[in-house]
Amino acid sequence: MEIPTIDDVIAAHERIAPHIHRTPVLTSSWLDQRSGARLFFKCENFQKAGAFKVRGATNAVFSLPDHLLEKGVATHSSGNHALSLSYAAGRRGIPCHVVMPHTAPQAKKDAVRAYGGIIRECEPSTSAREAMFAEVQAETGADFVHPYNDPRVIAGQATCSRELMSQTEGLDIVIAPIGGGGMISGTCLNLAATAPEVAIYAAEPEQADDAARSLHAGHIIADDAPQTVADGLKVPLKELTWHFVSRHVTDILTASEQEIIDAMRLTWARMKIVIEPSCAVPLAVILKHPEVFAGKRVGVIITGGNVDLDRLPWTQ
Amino acid sequence: MEIPTIDDVIAAHERIAPHIHRTPVLTSSWLDQRSGARLFFKCENFQKAGAFKVRGATNAVFSLPDHLLEKGVATHSSGNHALSLSYAAGRRGIPCHVVMPHTAPQAKKDAVRAYGGIIRECEPSTSAREAMFAEVQAETGADFVHPYNDPRVIAGQATCSRELMSQTEGLDIVIAPIGGGGMISGTCLNLAATAPEVAIYAAEPEQADDAARSLHAGHIIADDAPQTVADGLKVPLKELTWHFVSRHVTDILTASEQEIIDAMRLTWARMKIVIEPSCAVPLAVILKHPEVFAGKRVGVIITGGNVDLDRLPWTQ
Repeated sequence: MEIPTIDDVIAAHERIAPHIHRTPVLTSSWLDQRSGARLFFKCENFQKAGAFKVRGATNAVFSLPDHLLEKGVATHSSGNHALSLSYAAGRRGIPCHVVMPHTAPQAKKDAVRAYGGIIRECEPSTSAREAMFAEVQAETGADFVHPYNDPRVIAGQATCSRELMSQTEGLDIVIAPIGGGGMISGTCLNLAATAPEVAIYAAEPEQADDAARSLHAGHIIADDAPQTVADGLKVPLKELTWHFVSRHVTDILTASEQEIIDAMRLTWARMKIVIEPSCAVPLAVILKHPEVFAGKRVGVIITGGNVDLDRLPWTQ
Repeated sequence: MEIPTIDDVIAAHERIAPHIHRTPVLTSSWLDQRSGARLFFKCENFQKAGAFKVRGATNAVFSLPDHLLEKGVATHSSGNHALSLSYAAGRRGIPCHVVMPHTAPQAKKDAVRAYGGIIRECEPSTSAREAMFAEVQAETGADFVHPYNDPRVIAGQATCSRELMSQTEGLDIVIAPIGGGGMISGTCLNLAATAPEVAIYAAEPEQADDAARSLHAGHIIADDAPQTVADGLKVPLKELTWHFVSRHVTDILTASEQEIIDAMRLTWARMKIVIEPSCAVPLAVILKHPEVFAGKRVGVIITGGNVDLDRLPWTQ
């Protein structure tokens, strides 16, 4: 298992800079008052392709050696990684094959195709998608860029907290949602090397709390096909993300479906930004646990903004 | 009639700076490609109280002489000015009376009350609201801060394009929605004095096109109670805004209800920001008239983000 280093992060940041946005950090005096904390929202919903995942995907695509370019890249993803890899592959002019559950939001399927990605649909479970993926890879010979269990991807995601730290004057805590653990692992990789005084928390839906149970049990627990409105967070930890999570994460806190939806709606209403359910989980957790966050300077990673605007969770 | 000057604008900017945000300017490569223009969105949806109107309202409230403070301020407004005046009055610790149509979005009524504003509801027509307002003013003796036909308000709104010009490296056009004309008048006041080479366009709903008809006729035409999804733009020009519009606006272009809703949805989906229907009218007009905007550097004033999230126009 190849563990990425802080030098990989610095190289990734230079490599991807021409292809990504340095996204803004927003604050909200209303949410500060409500939470008792000082919150700094790193807005990766404004990122290219609408999500932080473009950082890792672009790092993987642009570090591909020339002899692998023709066969392109392939992945399986519940959405944003598919979009991001298609975007990055398009920027480099190489093919991108994507295995995606047929239940993924139509907006995400349309966007993958608009970036030139080639979709193969599967049943909405981790096992089904891995089986379909093996088939696609055998057919195409494309380089596998896993959504998170890949050192190139984690080094790319680490550039997000690198920017966040340079955009704020010191933080006590950084919190991000956890699904497979790519963003959290990148955050661990960067902060452990450059700002070890910052505590790292992860936020997870109660109904897909396999990472929280893993951390408390001391080994990876993987659930097949959990159900949650936070559709980016259904996937399990893998060995590389477990490496970082088990070593550097202070705690993983959970929120209920209703708490997630309320925090999402609150963010739209008060901050006037469109965010996905997945990235409302940290705010839900912050509001639920003032004993952890109140009085602290907290960096909150808003991971993405790709929502099906015809199906909002509070109007269902 | 007292005409505000550029010195009033500069004084207003200093006066209101502690109470407002210097809002960011966002760009979208996707919308640039779609429009053929280079678009710079001045995001007043991120402003205090969720709209640019806080600039003019704050300037009026904080320039009130001491002997008028006790009786406070009063206004009639379809929403954002009410919110903004309540916010500003709260910051100065004085009462704020608001006459508002009972059809105004619940979210706006709730927000006015949360800022401490005292609401009196009326029928949703210009004449009904003016009659009710006269009653309230007679009862309270509060200082009338008109939503737009007030030199203090126009000088305050002018600070928006002042910031926009300092945040961009030269513009060919600035475009904003037009209802009563407060933002457009402030834009005229500022740009005529500081950047007369920039053309000023206004954007209006076809179904509430009284300002466009006024400009083409050469005198104010006022409609009573027009119907449009852009609920901030139903009010007519008044003498002070007509002064600026008639002298400095190049043209007023219109968009249909469907074009406005499509542009609003496109902004949410692509820019990941929550904007009101009113401020989607400029983008609708830009996409409809490439012969005017393509190839140009265009500043677009996103006027506000106060939307009833339970009633989105594309899910009705």
